[in-house]
Amino acid sequence: MQLPRPSGLITLLTDFGARDPYVGIMKGIIKRHHARADVVDLCHEVPPQALRVGALFLGAAVGRFPTGTIHVAVVDPGVGTARRFLCAYRHECFWVGPDNGLLEPALPAGEAGELRAVDAKALQLEPQSATFHGRDVFAPLAGLLASQRLGFRAVGPRIDDPVRLPASTRAEVVCVDRFGNLITNVAASRVAPGITVGIAGRKIPLRATYADGRPGEIIALVNSFDLLEIAQCQGDASQALGAGAGAAVELE
Amino acid sequence: MQLPRPSGLITLLTDFGARDPYVGIMKGIIKRHHARADVVDLCHEVPPQALRVGALFLGAAVGRFPTGTIHVAVVDPGVGTARRFLCAYRHECFWVGPDNGLLEPALPAGEAGELRAVDAKALQLEPQSATFHGRDVFAPLAGLLASQRLGFRAVGPRIDDPVRLPASTRAEVVCVDRFGNLITNVAASRVAPGITVGIAGRKIPLRATYADGRPGEIIALVNSFDLLEIAQCQGDASQALGAGAGAAVELE
Amino acid sequence: MQLPRPSGLITLLTDFGARDPYVGIMKGIIKRHHARADVVDLCHEVPPQALRVGALFLGAAVGRFPTGTIHVAVVDPGVGTARRFLCAYRHECFWVGPDNGLLEPALPAGEAGELRAVDAKALQLEPQSATFHGRDVFAPLAGLLASQRLGFRAVGPRIDDPVRLPASTRAEVVCVDRFGNLITNVAASRVAPGITVGIAGRKIPLRATYADGRPGEIIALVNSFDLLEIAQCQGDASQALGAGAGAAVELE
Repeated sequence: MQLPRPSGLITLLTDFGARDPYVGIMKGIIKRHHARADVVDLCHEVPPQALRVGALFLGAAVGRFPTGTIHVAVVDPGVGTARRFLCAYRHECFWVGPDNGLLEPALPAGEAGELRAVDAKALQLEPQSATFHGRDVFAPLAGLLASQRLGFRAVGPRIDDPVRLPASTRAEVVCVDRFGNLITNVAASRVAPGITVGIAGRKIPLRATYADGRPGEIIALVNSFDLLEIAQCQGDASQALGAGAGAAVELE
Repeated sequence: MQLPRPSGLITLLTDFGARDPYVGIMKGIIKRHHARADVVDLCHEVPPQALRVGALFLGAAVGRFPTGTIHVAVVDPGVGTARRFLCAYRHECFWVGPDNGLLEPALPAGEAGELRAVDAKALQLEPQSATFHGRDVFAPLAGLLASQRLGFRAVGPRIDDPVRLPASTRAEVVCVDRFGNLITNVAASRVAPGITVGIAGRKIPLRATYADGRPGEIIALVNSFDLLEIAQCQGDASQALGAGAGAAVELE
Repeated sequence: MQLPRPSGLITLLTDFGARDPYVGIMKGIIKRHHARADVVDLCHEVPPQALRVGALFLGAAVGRFPTGTIHVAVVDPGVGTARRFLCAYRHECFWVGPDNGLLEPALPAGEAGELRAVDAKALQLEPQSATFHGRDVFAPLAGLLASQRLGFRAVGPRIDDPVRLPASTRAEVVCVDRFGNLITNVAASRVAPGITVGIAGRKIPLRATYADGRPGEIIALVNSFDLLEIAQCQGDASQALGAGAGAAVELE
């Protein structure tokens, strides 16, 4: 498989929030390794340690960035322990993050993609701290890849046993967005026309867009992530239904 | 009228917040259309669907960015309906957003400026989703304009009937800033020396700067947007007065 | 002392938050002065007017950005009064901010570093507003320095009497991070192996990393800022202890 060259664009997805300088410092380290890196925030408000939400957001980036983008993801409850650092190539982009399931949308499937474990020792990227591997490992690794001084296939050995997220066993709300919309794990392909969606003891009609209901009406629709979403027209569905992440969803 | 060239700088103003990857994905799409685009966040915490606050913040950008900046604004309660997409030239910059009043500070006035309705079909920018036109239309449009592969006058026909915000009929608080300062819709030109400002049953003295009052004192002043603002010295005026967006203001 | 050239990278640290367009407008002004400036957010959620937290976050940037970075810091309770504008060179970077102690980590020590008071009048940077010197003074100053049209030694006279933060007289919590971790002012050098940390009437054991305790256990560790931190494994120490900024810390 022929790989594209890194484009110089690096995205960051973390659960660090905006309250502290953690993200800013990661950008400084990236720039120390590649001054011309173009760093874009994908999202930093993943709920603390919420791997499934992080994976959902990463998945939303697939196909939306230029070929050769390096996506760095740090939601890392195991920081400081011996878990591996991963580097993947898939969907024409590079993906960097801890081996804990977060990189789910970037893991190889069949012939598609390639996955490597980062040999931090050989690359002289052994962590200086026990708490901030975003700064000590992931940021310099991304900078080195973007600078093309380090090639993807030189980061470490190929592996095929990444940690996976536990499979979802039921339809449920994964997260609530800023507007109070409930984003579920139900793929658009499972949403047949005419179905009714059950949540919190209510039956919700399927519509095409937010503006297709009366003000205050609660509707279901396929959202821009190609997932089933439950929204309140001109309102906050999470508040109106008293439902949030983890709430069960039924399709009828 | 001779137009400047787009500078490559694109700003984003939305009500998307930081909690979700919506803004990050818009940036990815922009970069897919123009890799060297320089994207700056103007603000993403416009209260959901608050067109008047969005227009105020856009107005604050007038004259503060380089000639040829492309300002993209997405506060869009009508997403998914048939409302038009607009592209304006004014104040030496380009402005992109929905036709719902949000672009008020960028609309032509007399001979100044030029306004066009985007022909999304001709430009092959028809939305892929019913809920995220920021990604499907506004981001690629901005990227194309920045790349200079699409000229401003090729986006679609000139129009002169944009949707306007309802005129303000009274002096009031438009929004509360992070410090609890109450930002009003009263222009500096209406603020004569020696006036007293009434709000929430209180009479507030006019001062030159935050530091001109005693700690805890509530004062009025002309702020950096050239608007009347009510502040508490070393405190939070909104909390102290129990007043927020929509509160009536009197000038005496 | 020979100074490096500004690298074109500018960081911003403020207490402006994300709710308003203040930071976006500063970036516009910077770009007006130096279109190719590369602006990175260090942090904008310093609690309003919290100089000590701002200084801590600035200190965390030392050594983490490229040589020649210009760090701009605006936490400025005295905006609009006669306090000086400072420009420092230290740690191979330039530092711009108000003369109120915020720039503590950048102030000269012995032979290291150089400090100047900005002659705003001579540079034609006199504030247009009484409330937003980030826009009127600090942003254009940073842009001019980055563009190399203004040299560091031309900003104004050398001084040696900056305002200093009051010395800390006791060990205490400076701020709480997004994860509820309590960040103290205790340097790693004071943390001997085997010590116990007292806070809120509790004795807390010292560990190496977050993952070294049982879920729910409260531990102390040296964090990535090289400061003592108190954390709850997979939890929120601030909530669990009912302790926040200002809480006293004891070392035993």
